[in-house]
Amino acid sequence: MKYKYRSGLADMPSYDVVERDWRIKINANECGMNPPPLVQERAMTRLDRVAFNRYPNEQADMLREAIADEYGLKKENVVLGNGSSEIIEKLFATFGGKGHKIVYPQPSFSMYKIYAKAAEAEGIPVDLEPDYTLDVDKFIAAVKESRASLAVICNPNNPTGSLFSLEDVEKVAKSINCPLLMDEAYMEFAEAAGYKNSAVPLMKKYPHIIVARTFSKAYGLASCRAGYMLAAEDIATMTGKTMMPYYMNVLTLTVADTVWQMRDEYRPRIEQMITERERMAMELEKLEGFTVYPSATNFLLVKYDRAVELNEYLTELSIGVRSFGAAPRLENTLRFSMGTPAENDQWLLAVQTFARGEV
Amino acid sequence: MKYKYRSGLADMPSYDVVERDWRIKINANECGMNPPPLVQERAMTRLDRVAFNRYPNEQADMLREAIADEYGLKKENVVLGNGSSEIIEKLFATFGGKGHKIVYPQPSFSMYKIYAKAAEAEGIPVDLEPDYTLDVDKFIAAVKESRASLAVICNPNNPTGSLFSLEDVEKVAKSINCPLLMDEAYMEFAEAAGYKNSAVPLMKKYPHIIVARTFSKAYGLASCRAGYMLAAEDIATMTGKTMMPYYMNVLTLTVADTVWQMRDEYRPRIEQMITERERMAMELEKLEGFTVYPSATNFLLVKYDRAVELNEYLTELSIGVRSFGAAPRLENTLRFSMGTPAENDQWLLAVQTFARGEV
Repeated sequence: MKYKYRSGLADMPSYDVVERDWRIKINANECGMNPPPLVQERAMTRLDRVAFNRYPNEQADMLREAIADEYGLKKENVVLGNGSSEIIEKLFATFGGKGHKIVYPQPSFSMYKIYAKAAEAEGIPVDLEPDYTLDVDKFIAAVKESRASLAVICNPNNPTGSLFSLEDVEKVAKSINCPLLMDEAYMEFAEAAGYKNSAVPLMKKYPHIIVARTFSKAYGLASCRAGYMLAAEDIATMTGKTMMPYYMNVLTLTVADTVWQMRDEYRPRIEQMITERERMAMELEKLEGFTVYPSATNFLLVKYDRAVELNEYLTELSIGVRSFGAAPRLENTLRFSMGTPAENDQWLLAVQTFARGEV
Repeated sequence: MKYKYRSGLADMPSYDVVERDWRIKINANECGMNPPPLVQERAMTRLDRVAFNRYPNEQADMLREAIADEYGLKKENVVLGNGSSEIIEKLFATFGGKGHKIVYPQPSFSMYKIYAKAAEAEGIPVDLEPDYTLDVDKFIAAVKESRASLAVICNPNNPTGSLFSLEDVEKVAKSINCPLLMDEAYMEFAEAAGYKNSAVPLMKKYPHIIVARTFSKAYGLASCRAGYMLAAEDIATMTGKTMMPYYMNVLTLTVADTVWQMRDEYRPRIEQMITERERMAMELEKLEGFTVYPSATNFLLVKYDRAVELNEYLTELSIGVRSFGAAPRLENTLRFSMGTPAENDQWLLAVQTFARGEV
């Protein structure tokens, strides 16, 4: 029997990758630590009181309201997702479909390409400059020429770490004729360092700006899959139409709500990750042949002629870093997420040993 | 600025319904009880050990393997979902797209229509007989004539409670030329009563049979959103392509895995729900003007000329039952999920009081 699958689906990749059990895992920009004990204790107490047998009810709205409050918005401006991944996936679906085009920088979050394909839209990558800065005029031209339905900028950018200025973001917003999704998965790290680069304050003036954020990075909840977007009500409503009833589960909502209420507890660890990133950047820059790119995130992108061999060496030591294979513009680069200070000491020593030819 | 939304999306409904705080809530076929204390204790212990900061990893495969074992299948035959709702949504997407047709009985699970629309497919309902039995030949003819890409049967059927025979299911499977999704959300209740109506044993002979199951009903985990499907590897792989990485969260996987391991603990309460259903059916049948349909589930569908008024009366008492408004073939019906025996006593008394005109 020949099945009538959805057209194009066969070309989609399959995901069933089980990760190695790394001794030091710094390949996914996760937070190196579990929640602060106070937060975890509170979350566990609340989880134990969940009505496991009931469908989700008011929990999503409670979290939407709490998030809206922080930004001076209404709950109707907040859409929750199973990770900001789902937010981006659904936004691509919302503005996707046959003939629609979605423009994003390259290199950036590798899933944009997949989400565009899943949305049956055409993904249009715009090359960043050799130093990973954004040529704003080139980006605007690409959006206009393609008559895109959606433009996306990841700020700070993954995997390069680059922080784009709010002036640049505003210039893009002002110049294009479609919604602009700002993927701010790492913005908490920039904000804690004093950078006021979030596009949220621009949303009033430019109601076509959408901001996506996540609990997975600064708030260390990657396991729970919790993220949110902020948008004008019309865009939020349309995006909500791609989400089926009960798409958020109560356990995730309960833990995310607890973390959100206690988010001040995360400030010291976010600052520690920034300090660690600066320390690691300084040390890596001392090594011959290493280019360390400026980062406003919890990770560092490094260019090094022998990146492939270095990656193999680290793998042998059970240190998992992110290598991008043959991805465009990422030849000979490696991405190091910040772990705990002790973990950072260990992988740094391994990198130094390799770079100094002491292997 | 006029946005280029996905074509057809504007016609999709929005979901942001917050449920009333019912004194007795028997409107969503939920289990009336939280997990058995032993199960909850074990789940909480495991949740407290979760690496909250890490992306999901081997947890999904562990649960897939445990489920596969039960059915003598391989993990490649098991796809997990955020509820069997997501399974059905994604299967409709897998076999959907422009010009594709999906056939299902009516009345049945009300979301089939929505999932078909979300999949940009055409949903084709086939009327059940007046007594809610399935005219197999009529159903087969509808599948063939429409050259459907997918056929769906909910067995036992929601909201009618009807159990379709395995012979009928096999006849459909044998006669049609497309995958047959058996939505067995309530099958655990039929099985516990001794009915061997699950289509799982037919899958070897008919590799185009897909079975969807859920943790939400018999296992009382509606809050967690956990379900699964069983299918031949080619169908499972294609369905998996519609799921993005990390679509399942670790909390849900951990609780579902615990419940699965301890599923024998649920046997007594499943049997109690069956006993309660029989008790309620017997009592309701005694009431003048009530037609109670045979049910193999944890709920009863009742036809009654004054169903609308009865629903209003129960609402006043803060007893939430399911009324279907003007849904086709469900005029003047109400659906009662089984609660705890004490809850059942209470709503039964209210129904009796109303039916006897003692209000």
